[in-house]
Amino acid sequence: MESARTNPRFLPNVPLPGSLSFCADMEQCVPQSDVLVSAVPTQFLRGVAQQLAGHLRPDQPVVTVTKGIEEGTNMLGSEVLRDTCGEEFPLAGLFGPSHAEEVARRQPTTVVATSRDEELARRVQEVFLTPVFRVYTNTDMLGVELGAALKNVIALAGGMCDGLDFGDNAKSALITRGLAEMVRLGVAMGAEPETFAGLTGLGDLITTCVSPHGRNRSVGMRIGQGESIEEIVAGMDQVAEGVRTTRSACALADEYEVEMPITRAVHQILFDGLSPREAVTELMTRSPKPERYGEPEKEGAD
Amino acid sequence: MESARTNPRFLPNVPLPGSLSFCADMEQCVPQSDVLVSAVPTQFLRGVAQQLAGHLRPDQPVVTVTKGIEEGTNMLGSEVLRDTCGEEFPLAGLFGPSHAEEVARRQPTTVVATSRDEELARRVQEVFLTPVFRVYTNTDMLGVELGAALKNVIALAGGMCDGLDFGDNAKSALITRGLAEMVRLGVAMGAEPETFAGLTGLGDLITTCVSPHGRNRSVGMRIGQGESIEEIVAGMDQVAEGVRTTRSACALADEYEVEMPITRAVHQILFDGLSPREAVTELMTRSPKPERYGEPEKEGAD
Repeated sequence: MESARTNPRFLPNVPLPGSLSFCADMEQCVPQSDVLVSAVPTQFLRGVAQQLAGHLRPDQPVVTVTKGIEEGTNMLGSEVLRDTCGEEFPLAGLFGPSHAEEVARRQPTTVVATSRDEELARRVQEVFLTPVFRVYTNTDMLGVELGAALKNVIALAGGMCDGLDFGDNAKSALITRGLAEMVRLGVAMGAEPETFAGLTGLGDLITTCVSPHGRNRSVGMRIGQGESIEEIVAGMDQVAEGVRTTRSACALADEYEVEMPITRAVHQILFDGLSPREAVTELMTRSPKPERYGEPEKEGAD
Repeated sequence: MESARTNPRFLPNVPLPGSLSFCADMEQCVPQSDVLVSAVPTQFLRGVAQQLAGHLRPDQPVVTVTKGIEEGTNMLGSEVLRDTCGEEFPLAGLFGPSHAEEVARRQPTTVVATSRDEELARRVQEVFLTPVFRVYTNTDMLGVELGAALKNVIALAGGMCDGLDFGDNAKSALITRGLAEMVRLGVAMGAEPETFAGLTGLGDLITTCVSPHGRNRSVGMRIGQGESIEEIVAGMDQVAEGVRTTRSACALADEYEVEMPITRAVHQILFDGLSPREAVTELMTRSPKPERYGEPEKEGAD
């Protein structure tokens, strides 16, 4: 990447800015940075964070952009970072509908800088704000990050809808009801329901369910068209985080006793051989219900 | 339509069910109906409702599916019906992401039956529920109907984004921030904020901003590509409700002192010659803000 001045694997044909320098040595690059951005895929995050922990100053802010839940521990990216680098270091995140292909072409993009520390969220906002990259702030970091992770499961379902040629009515119902179950889990875990109607949660969900760039949507679409998850994963270069997140989301739904029918259906399709067409029929023929946002659908659920 | 057994103008090539009969005489058809469905475009609704009023029994439920706000009075469809047929007759609505082209092809669709009277909402749910047409209930009729109407304004903006080739990041940010301003107006008018995260509001907004069937999105796209609203309207067979609704929504925003920057921008583009590209730049470069759902952005606004 240093010699080519592009990222040929993940963002080909986009020249990287001249001000960008490359360094593979944490001991060298971490101490000289005012703000660190951690952009490590979920399943590699713990290993990288353990290396980072030894070099991080206590006042040095880290901005995480990892969207996923660690398998086994069911921890979000920020929880993995706190688990390895300490509870108290200044931690923020930058999330929202921001496909790299479009950001790189300077197409207008809007994201949210999140931290439990409002002052830090505003600092991150200042660092990243440009006329084509609008940054909001939100102190509900759990809600923001959970929305960013869980939406990948619904994106798989959205792709299946497309693969089955079910149309836009079905897909927008799926996004809407998918958001409702994301909120249910989030509220049970202590997040604010409003956060999920924001740029992560809703915003992210729309982009990822609709955009041709969305990896999770593409995987879902191929499943909808009849391919198996094993075939698809075997041929993939980039990871579709949603496949792993589906397992973690179901584990969290069990732990917090929250009903998540769409997430459960995606799990059954991915891992238990349920056909996507049957799954949609099952979802559509459940008993008639009032419309709810973030409240339990099931009696006795929390 | 009776002889062709299709609706050649609005739904060509779809055979109409044999059980459907046609009648242009209210005196004949109204008394024999258990449930009436009012599917009249906003600007013709008052005239039709005035005729209806003379034939309606006090216990006869009307289900409105009109999505719009009457110009001049700024009344929603249900308000026009109450204004002409009386405050107390049983009134419900059926709204949500349900493009007719897809419903007619029996693609899975999910909508909401709404009435202030919960019992009536459930009755409408029962009447319309099928295995491919899932019906939820919601008693916040004002919120449901307002979402169904206001989303057409945001769909115009979504189409402009497409016409300008601004990408999916921008469009999902627009939908998300558009929803936030719909909620702000709704809450000021007495609706529940959660309603807008449901099938109308959010669900409807997604379909109409994304689907190729969306008339408002198409109009917006042509504006984004440089056509004038006069040219577009002159060549249209079906009305794009959003153009009229934009005026009414701005009037309501004035009346309730609510900030609706996207709706205002659409108004300026449609009626005051603002260029869509300038409008987006203005929206993107407003002062940095915390992310809010349904709360005022402007000091002193309600």
